[in-house]
Amino acid sequence: MGSSKTNPGNFFEDFKLGQVLYHATPRTITEGDVSLYTALYGGRFALQSADSFALDCGLQAAPVDDLLVFHIVFGKTVPDISLNAVANLGYADVKFIAPVYPGDSVQTTSEVIGLKENSNGKTGVVYVRSTGVNQMGEVVLDYVRWVMVRKKDPSAAAPETVLPELPETVDPAAFFVPSQFDVSRYDTALAGSVHLFEDYEVGEKIDHVDGMTIEEAEHMLATRLYQNTAKVHFNQHMMKDDRMGRRLIYGGHIISLVRSLSFNGLGNALFVAAINGGSHTAPTFAGDTIYAWSEVLDKADVPGRTDLGALRIRSLGVKNQTCADFPDKAEDGKRDPSVVLDLDCWVILPKATIEV
Amino acid sequence: MGSSKTNPGNFFEDFKLGQVLYHATPRTITEGDVSLYTALYGGRFALQSADSFALDCGLQAAPVDDLLVFHIVFGKTVPDISLNAVANLGYADVKFIAPVYPGDSVQTTSEVIGLKENSNGKTGVVYVRSTGVNQMGEVVLDYVRWVMVRKKDPSAAAPETVLPELPETVDPAAFFVPSQFDVSRYDTALAGSVHLFEDYEVGEKIDHVDGMTIEEAEHMLATRLYQNTAKVHFNQHMMKDDRMGRRLIYGGHIISLVRSLSFNGLGNALFVAAINGGSHTAPTFAGDTIYAWSEVLDKADVPGRTDLGALRIRSLGVKNQTCADFPDKAEDGKRDPSVVLDLDCWVILPKATIEV
Amino acid sequence: MGSSKTNPGNFFEDFKLGQVLYHATPRTITEGDVSLYTALYGGRFALQSADSFALDCGLQAAPVDDLLVFHIVFGKTVPDISLNAVANLGYADVKFIAPVYPGDSVQTTSEVIGLKENSNGKTGVVYVRSTGVNQMGEVVLDYVRWVMVRKKDPSAAAPETVLPELPETVDPAAFFVPSQFDVSRYDTALAGSVHLFEDYEVGEKIDHVDGMTIEEAEHMLATRLYQNTAKVHFNQHMMKDDRMGRRLIYGGHIISLVRSLSFNGLGNALFVAAINGGSHTAPTFAGDTIYAWSEVLDKADVPGRTDLGALRIRSLGVKNQTCADFPDKAEDGKRDPSVVLDLDCWVILPKATIEV
Repeated sequence: MGSSKTNPGNFFEDFKLGQVLYHATPRTITEGDVSLYTALYGGRFALQSADSFALDCGLQAAPVDDLLVFHIVFGKTVPDISLNAVANLGYADVKFIAPVYPGDSVQTTSEVIGLKENSNGKTGVVYVRSTGVNQMGEVVLDYVRWVMVRKKDPSAAAPETVLPELPETVDPAAFFVPSQFDVSRYDTALAGSVHLFEDYEVGEKIDHVDGMTIEEAEHMLATRLYQNTAKVHFNQHMMKDDRMGRRLIYGGHIISLVRSLSFNGLGNALFVAAINGGSHTAPTFAGDTIYAWSEVLDKADVPGRTDLGALRIRSLGVKNQTCADFPDKAEDGKRDPSVVLDLDCWVILPKATIEV
Repeated sequence: MGSSKTNPGNFFEDFKLGQVLYHATPRTITEGDVSLYTALYGGRFALQSADSFALDCGLQAAPVDDLLVFHIVFGKTVPDISLNAVANLGYADVKFIAPVYPGDSVQTTSEVIGLKENSNGKTGVVYVRSTGVNQMGEVVLDYVRWVMVRKKDPSAAAPETVLPELPETVDPAAFFVPSQFDVSRYDTALAGSVHLFEDYEVGEKIDHVDGMTIEEAEHMLATRLYQNTAKVHFNQHMMKDDRMGRRLIYGGHIISLVRSLSFNGLGNALFVAAINGGSHTAPTFAGDTIYAWSEVLDKADVPGRTDLGALRIRSLGVKNQTCADFPDKAEDGKRDPSVVLDLDCWVILPKATIEV
Repeated sequence: MGSSKTNPGNFFEDFKLGQVLYHATPRTITEGDVSLYTALYGGRFALQSADSFALDCGLQAAPVDDLLVFHIVFGKTVPDISLNAVANLGYADVKFIAPVYPGDSVQTTSEVIGLKENSNGKTGVVYVRSTGVNQMGEVVLDYVRWVMVRKKDPSAAAPETVLPELPETVDPAAFFVPSQFDVSRYDTALAGSVHLFEDYEVGEKIDHVDGMTIEEAEHMLATRLYQNTAKVHFNQHMMKDDRMGRRLIYGGHIISLVRSLSFNGLGNALFVAAINGGSHTAPTFAGDTIYAWSEVLDKADVPGRTDLGALRIRSLGVKNQTCADFPDKAEDGKRDPSVVLDLDCWVILPKATIEV
């Protein structure tokens, strides 16, 4: 007697506009997760590293790294949204809305906000807005993601095409900074960088210099920590028959590595306020060494704050090539094949008005 | 001047019937251990994942995964029981008696309950009942294990043969469920499965679908986390001269992987109440991909509870082969060589009387 | 437009005698770090493993392993002291001054206490005393380290040569043991060894027997956990062009492995009171198996304590060779090439006056 109690995931025709999915497995984020995150990426941002530093900034404790929160909130959506995905096409309008502290529990819901069947009739694109909330019901993170999903039954009728309106960048007016957050005692020596908001100019490019090689055990530990169940990351027995013959590394692992590498040049980028968009432009595999560089795209004030500013930063992750030459698009418009990540974020820095 | 201060372990002739061994290294189990356990196996059972979910179930916090407790309690016995073991033959009557929460400290004692010298005069089988207690002296786990141990001196006299009576299965009357545990607000959406106790039938087989490849770093991190000192898991310089030329993976690592994979099909199996028995039927090595399938052997009520039921589940761990065909014994009675674990457990699920 | 906001590190001519460096990234050490440390090295010292055991010894909780504190305090100095180092030449006068408990935050400052330009005019030796303090401003660790650092500008004038006076061993009078620490209820069964201070003799050698193979993922997880940014540990793309073609393992990883292996023979060596000196005598790489042996160099009383004694222990880490023959220097004075670490420590043990 067989069983059909396993999760087949949703296929394109299973998604309906306006549908809300309640994702499984709430998760308490603990100091253990924070330590593992440090061990996986080696982050050195002072605010997330030490309670003592966070207390000096008016917070109750060192907040959990924004991207660790992102990965955990995201991981919950995989079994319902992307188990039958052909490709993770992009995300937009990612807003970090409330700090998460060790001990907080998060869970995720998603709403289907767009649908478009592809002309081949075999796949379609699903747009969802996913929302992570904490144990008090407060939203901590909100973002849009779209994926290409297989149809189970090619003869299923196509839904009406609805494409959500998505902002090209998150409006700085939407940034959330805790009101108690206070940089009047911010110590740039402890933070590890003297370069504050005013020191950066639009157009400035920063080679983050350092490189980090990824091992299979590392990306799998990370991806399981996020309870992300996408098979391609874990199952070499299956992937040996894939085109590349290798396990794929979770794209979010590269985002976190690049963020960590960016400390060398952006040490006072305390928070990620928003992710405007991002593409995983090439796959990465164990053995690849990731370098990174960033470009300042824009600068903005933070509403209600004279002591903080926001930089819009485009960060590129690059594999097996140093970034002194800022690898990007070639003259023919083709992307340098070493680029694996193209990420567009807003980060928050103290302004020079602080006493240093 | 040499020293003899290192632990030689006990040999068969060192064990006496009724002897009690007080094992070293008490251990506080923390949120750090829980995070590592999640990173190692990717478990998604909601009760163990989130304090918020556990509080909704009447518990004080997310309890530590039963098998993490098992591995830590077990690990302490290795230096005294199995350092000179030829083979870990089996376990039986494994009962999870009290929940363990982060912050609890456990330690282990063992009593020798059976002895049988082998006819070759070189080895013998030792049966021990091992008991893990917490810092309040409460028993949290109790189990019987038997191992084949070398004699140091082949001329040592054989002890009287005493074989303990062991139950084929743990009697459901012996199950422990905390009285405050309450599933009246159990949320199957958050739990990740709609299938409750009544939905399973004796004889039903479940292919857990997913596979997980194991790296050397992963199983060694796990086994050290459990302070299990068996040399075969850690020392490639020694193992290169072994028959297989490889480090062996701790059998408990496979048990935890299989339990984690079983979420896909048994998502509401909240607790492991008991392990009736288990065999590691073939060794596993780094690079192996583990799949799993389960069969429902029996169903039982839980004493004093109308809201919970118990499933007796036989779970098989299988290497480098998917389980759609439920690999097991062939017609000639020989076990499929891909099967590496054959485990017989009781797990607890909510009954459908709960509001969902 | 390029940027020069990344940390170039200090070159030899940047260091001035008496200069104080405030190192970045304060760090809260948590239960998560402790769990990872256990998973990385498999330590079994009871005092650091269980709150219950530590409470029985009069402490408020299990203290953080001394060497974990060392690595974290040390890691902060790397970006300022040794980013342009040619070689890490040695350390001396390492004193563990106050216990660190999970939740404590540490930060590090260093003072330049010696300078000597090398005759080649291209490099020089920098001596620093580094001090780790907790969130109350209490010193927890103090040590001297010297490194050979490149000059950026070979024509820069040589500083006056100043060499600090360094003790060959830390004076036992300087040992710190918490006054509330009390071994009257010390349980040698739980500790895992019956061998107390009086049982060790000067000249005694101990083969710690066990071996542990290191994987790339393991040493990189460890070194990132310590927020140590030395490039040679992480970047295979760069190191493939190095003489050895491999990532180098952080020397401190070997120190912790050797300390962990030393449990088998020194199970009651509760604390590391001091490190008198140490050399990493050969590099180690992933795939190496580390064994260890120790020799008792001296014994001392602990000031103000009749219940504790100190052993001066020389511990050798050895790669890919067992230590039954105590590999060391050959008759021609050359070091056995398998020796990778030569470490000279003071450790604290209970005296036999305790009730056992």
